[in-house]
Amino acid sequence: MKVLRVGLLGFGTVGTGVVKALARNGDLVGARTGVKPVITRIADLDITRDRGVQVPPGVLTTDARGVIADPNVDVIIELIGGTGIAKTLVIETLKSGKPVVTANKALLAKHGAEIFAAAKEGKADIYYEASVAGGIPIIKALREGLAANHIQAIFGILNGTCNYILTRMEREGLPFDTILQDAQRLGYAEADPSLDIDGFDTAHKTTILAALAYGEWFGMDAIHVEGIRGIDLQDIRYAAAAGYRIKLLGIIKLTGADIEMRVHPALIPVKSMMASVGEVFNAIMVRGDVVGDTLFYGRGAGMDATASAVVADLVDVGLNLDFDSTHRVPAFRAHSSYNDVTAMGAITSRYYMRLQVLDRPSVLARVAQILGESGISLASVIQKEQVEASVAVVMTTHKASEAAIRQALALISKLDAIQSPPILIRIEDL
Amino acid sequence: MKVLRVGLLGFGTVGTGVVKALARNGDLVGARTGVKPVITRIADLDITRDRGVQVPPGVLTTDARGVIADPNVDVIIELIGGTGIAKTLVIETLKSGKPVVTANKALLAKHGAEIFAAAKEGKADIYYEASVAGGIPIIKALREGLAANHIQAIFGILNGTCNYILTRMEREGLPFDTILQDAQRLGYAEADPSLDIDGFDTAHKTTILAALAYGEWFGMDAIHVEGIRGIDLQDIRYAAAAGYRIKLLGIIKLTGADIEMRVHPALIPVKSMMASVGEVFNAIMVRGDVVGDTLFYGRGAGMDATASAVVADLVDVGLNLDFDSTHRVPAFRAHSSYNDVTAMGAITSRYYMRLQVLDRPSVLARVAQILGESGISLASVIQKEQVEASVAVVMTTHKASEAAIRQALALISKLDAIQSPPILIRIEDL
Repeated sequence: MKVLRVGLLGFGTVGTGVVKALARNGDLVGARTGVKPVITRIADLDITRDRGVQVPPGVLTTDARGVIADPNVDVIIELIGGTGIAKTLVIETLKSGKPVVTANKALLAKHGAEIFAAAKEGKADIYYEASVAGGIPIIKALREGLAANHIQAIFGILNGTCNYILTRMEREGLPFDTILQDAQRLGYAEADPSLDIDGFDTAHKTTILAALAYGEWFGMDAIHVEGIRGIDLQDIRYAAAAGYRIKLLGIIKLTGADIEMRVHPALIPVKSMMASVGEVFNAIMVRGDVVGDTLFYGRGAGMDATASAVVADLVDVGLNLDFDSTHRVPAFRAHSSYNDVTAMGAITSRYYMRLQVLDRPSVLARVAQILGESGISLASVIQKEQVEASVAVVMTTHKASEAAIRQALALISKLDAIQSPPILIRIEDL
Repeated sequence: MKVLRVGLLGFGTVGTGVVKALARNGDLVGARTGVKPVITRIADLDITRDRGVQVPPGVLTTDARGVIADPNVDVIIELIGGTGIAKTLVIETLKSGKPVVTANKALLAKHGAEIFAAAKEGKADIYYEASVAGGIPIIKALREGLAANHIQAIFGILNGTCNYILTRMEREGLPFDTILQDAQRLGYAEADPSLDIDGFDTAHKTTILAALAYGEWFGMDAIHVEGIRGIDLQDIRYAAAAGYRIKLLGIIKLTGADIEMRVHPALIPVKSMMASVGEVFNAIMVRGDVVGDTLFYGRGAGMDATASAVVADLVDVGLNLDFDSTHRVPAFRAHSSYNDVTAMGAITSRYYMRLQVLDRPSVLARVAQILGESGISLASVIQKEQVEASVAVVMTTHKASEAAIRQALALISKLDAIQSPPILIRIEDL
């Protein structure tokens, strides 16, 4: 059995989870895989705080570079986060020829190309299972288990905070702001929640999945991102009445030779497996041309679930060191046989629309006319009996182009009888 | 890029799927992984039938041993099935030092120890992702992706035929026999359906998962197996009314230091992810002590889904040959730190019971008394208003030991007022 000596950079929540997991299950991991990871050095700015785990004396240091250079460290785990010093240290480690395990999705999404170049230069592995969907082994599944497939589509619920908020909004009938504040109080949302609720975290993970599926490191420039701030209880209720549930999705699709890559809330059929994914859980549905539909579900964040993925990566690194098989599964292998990322205006989708209108008899006719002239056909229309001056008109469309619906919506917005900006949410029938 | 020369034994449905998948996606697999599998020889007793795929001349032969011995064949795929000649050929191949990829669950469940010994002796890999749950990469997940975890429980819907029958019984309100006959007509069930509907196929797969989770190759002796032949529409309806759905489950649980291993129909909460798994789909829920609950879903059978798993295994074999890293992830690594398989009488469960009784006022009291004396407490009782001479009494229990419920049921069966053998189905709250 190989003992793998691990240097940990960043002794926060996930770092503590890794230390805990290895203390509890290190022997099992060794017996099961032939590689027993042992934490030998930990670097953090704060080396005095009690994390509730035992660390032998001499392990803790504030000197990250000393840990990287330590000849008694075989692999570095980067759990500092962000794209500042973490980037510098990861690149230095790889260039020095030492492998890295990281959970840093922002770093990979933004600087993947540079990091993989460093891994190549230093002939060192970098593994990053924990960067997407926490404990779910989706990266291994995509590049190994499903390697036989042209990937036709990926739909991901990739942000636990958003899924928790949407789940509670629907269940408790409380508005977004109330649930967000409660989530912040409970530690499920950050004090500055933008990264999560505005969709950027989901976008980071979506670009990583897209890169592995399509063999091109797209980065963050090509992805369309919308978050869940605008989701209103009314829309959750109308969606439910029509047999849908609203989820924030990372969506990757092959259409012809082009790739769609986008993050936005979507109505999905309430009977679908993805709609059953509640609370802080994550799930990724992968549609392959050979395997058909598959789905992977689990905890997408948290100290323990993330630690599970980090330890699995340590085993891969350890086996590669032991068998001298570095880059057996390289960090990223370009294999692009596709063209471009589709411009958002060129996608087609079904749409859910809610208009708040003064109930003038002519309004609905005028709206229908505008949609018709834009080539958009309606699948359903609901207009409730009027109890107030303004009434909600809820429509769903058949497939239409994003450009057409945007243009139609711009015209509809200008109608006198429209009381507030129209709500538009895409429908994904999965 | 490495070209991996593949000899295929067994040119049936799945074999044809592999040939098709490699013809279509072989280049992609090569570009994505660095290993391009190419079928160079195929052995089958029937080499004239049209399978609808192109095979170059000279590839087909009836001489399996000639394919195994061919120096232009790097790896053997065994898709003959069964435990006869398939076993002999797999062992010969491994002993000759050539790696094997197989989908043969019965072979592994029954003769795993012997086969893994041959792999060790010949220093050759054997991979078998396709043996459990078709295209779902659950074996890779269990021994690599989730390696950090003590596995606390696994619940598997592992037989597409059974799941298809149960799904249609519930949806269409038709009895077991009718749906089975229709499934046979449609090709979803074999002419002799016993392997599927009596639970043995699920048992084969369950023992393989248990072995990987707990590091001991249990074989088929220790597993308790019940099928779905006895499932009545009435029970599906009563279960639904109580918020449950009936599924055939492979169940593996760690209780204390012992392992429960069993296959039987069970009531599971209709709101659970597992209950959403319909039609021919499979799913495996894995509960780890670090990662928490995970779930893996997809097609469990069929030429294409199974081919997806076979090709993924070919890539692992090819990488191991290329990097000289055979046995990097060995076929099976004993790491048992557990005790025994729990005897069935010693498990505890919740139970669903249906009694068909003559509506004598005293019967229910007598049944309750017997249960009470056996230490079994009731969670719910439903007795419908009487419309016929005999009436159904449906009960669910709190946790009780299997031995106690069996003993109580034996006494209840003897009561004069009991019209037919009591129905007993376990409840798994997952």
